[in-house]
Amino acid sequence: MLVSWAMKTHALDAGTVHYEWNNALPPRLEIDPGDTVVFETRDAADRFYAKTSTAEDVLKRVFRGHPLTGPVKVKGARPGDTLVVEILEVVPALDFGWTQVRPGRGLLPEEDFPKPHLCIWDLADKQIARMPNRPIAVPLEPFPGVMGVALDEPGGHSTMPPRRSGGNMDIKQLHAGTTLYLPVLVEGALFSVGDGHGAQGDGEVCITAVEMSARVTLRFALAKGRRIAEPRFRTAGPIGVKTNRGPHFVTTAHGPDLFASSQQAIRYMIEHLVEERGLTREEAYVLCSVAVDLKISEIVDAPSWIVSAFLPEMVFV
Amino acid sequence: MLVSWAMKTHALDAGTVHYEWNNALPPRLEIDPGDTVVFETRDAADRFYAKTSTAEDVLKRVFRGHPLTGPVKVKGARPGDTLVVEILEVVPALDFGWTQVRPGRGLLPEEDFPKPHLCIWDLADKQIARMPNRPIAVPLEPFPGVMGVALDEPGGHSTMPPRRSGGNMDIKQLHAGTTLYLPVLVEGALFSVGDGHGAQGDGEVCITAVEMSARVTLRFALAKGRRIAEPRFRTAGPIGVKTNRGPHFVTTAHGPDLFASSQQAIRYMIEHLVEERGLTREEAYVLCSVAVDLKISEIVDAPSWIVSAFLPEMVFV
Repeated sequence: MLVSWAMKTHALDAGTVHYEWNNALPPRLEIDPGDTVVFETRDAADRFYAKTSTAEDVLKRVFRGHPLTGPVKVKGARPGDTLVVEILEVVPALDFGWTQVRPGRGLLPEEDFPKPHLCIWDLADKQIARMPNRPIAVPLEPFPGVMGVALDEPGGHSTMPPRRSGGNMDIKQLHAGTTLYLPVLVEGALFSVGDGHGAQGDGEVCITAVEMSARVTLRFALAKGRRIAEPRFRTAGPIGVKTNRGPHFVTTAHGPDLFASSQQAIRYMIEHLVEERGLTREEAYVLCSVAVDLKISEIVDAPSWIVSAFLPEMVFV
Repeated sequence: MLVSWAMKTHALDAGTVHYEWNNALPPRLEIDPGDTVVFETRDAADRFYAKTSTAEDVLKRVFRGHPLTGPVKVKGARPGDTLVVEILEVVPALDFGWTQVRPGRGLLPEEDFPKPHLCIWDLADKQIARMPNRPIAVPLEPFPGVMGVALDEPGGHSTMPPRRSGGNMDIKQLHAGTTLYLPVLVEGALFSVGDGHGAQGDGEVCITAVEMSARVTLRFALAKGRRIAEPRFRTAGPIGVKTNRGPHFVTTAHGPDLFASSQQAIRYMIEHLVEERGLTREEAYVLCSVAVDLKISEIVDAPSWIVSAFLPEMVFV
């Protein structure tokens, strides 16, 4: 049974944020199922970067958790229900986004990338992220990296890993049009959102996407008594419509470990982008993180599985 | 430098096949770069199944290796070159295909699927695979599961795992229009092909796709002196055009092990297909193998990565 009777629209600014999951946090807003909320959200770096920031700023940044807007209490939500979140709109709040490479973070270790790097993307037209000094334009298909509900365990919990309650899922298909299903774990659900991404590849390999402050509009409903173990979702239509528009160049890596094969496929892609497209290694890694999709091509031909990295070549303009 | 001067078309029937990779096998055909070859190929079960086969036949089948058509020697190919394989056409040779569940094989263990199951697909119109007694129609986008060249190690090598030489890659985007790049490891390359798949999800989770005998038309060229470590490819256009045509239902699983999360995401999808679509567990597993795509949504938010399983709902008719 889908409960959804009211139709109010609320606004929640980003003046107050929280940096951890904690079910003792007081709700900033209480809504009925059926209501819509327009959330202002801060970027993952909590407004640390400006358009003039450089690679030297990367190591100065301190990460205290994703700044999240919320919690929102949904009346009538109880453990064992499913919270239904319709993603109505996600738009950049500013005219720039950023992607950083920080040694030791992300899919490839410090040996591959010993130096920090920062890419400031031009988002001026709100449709495309343009890389400085390169003929690269990545279409925006914005989504919140973090959407989740409070855990049923006391105390503070890091925002970094995704959890059964959602959180930092970084799933690029959670864009406008998609409906997300989250398990309700505490009374009122206590939903929060943040970490806007303008564009991202499946994998988010350098650990940052086109990071940005965003305005996120969500409509909430409840599926009473519908229990799910982990988040699920349904898209409104075909996937990848912004970038799936022409030839894809693909690298593959085989082996018994999917993580190691993912690393290898991305290394091959970086090699390709440096040799064939003239990018620096850092630019190539950034492009992989915002536009290259990791697929598990096969996971059954023992003892070797294949991970493939798909680059939509339409990003070169 | 791409060497390609001749333009002959050759035919190679499936009367003689080989069941292992072995660089001592004499070539059945010798071609020039630029030539096209029309290969007849046997299905992975070496014509064991008929349209009347049932689950009882699954355990009687003995797998001695994929039956491969070849080898083809490409004149002038030397170790350190890249073999360029343009996939011109792949069509079913018969009016049926099959997918089997064999306990203990595939992504999910015997505890999940203790009994064998066989699905015989109707391929009568050569465009769609129809599941018996269910309103399920999976569009065909046929490709050879196996394409590869001989290894530079002596003796016989199993056809089961994919290798740096290609082989049993089971990459669904290697359909007509795509160009595959393979490293040449021995004089003449010694290329073989087989294991036709009518449709497959990324992952091929039950270890069989819509398996079928097929006619495969390939054009060969050489990139002299271009050395690659593992197979790469380029599609001619957008990917997934046959199935990426409407809403997708998606399950997600998080955790530190991509393999375990892949298992869990598929278990959730099977649960969904049984509860919401009325399939048996075996039918659901088969549908996952032929139509559900495994994506690595994020691989950086330590300590938990997310694997997502995407079901294109257009397969329900």
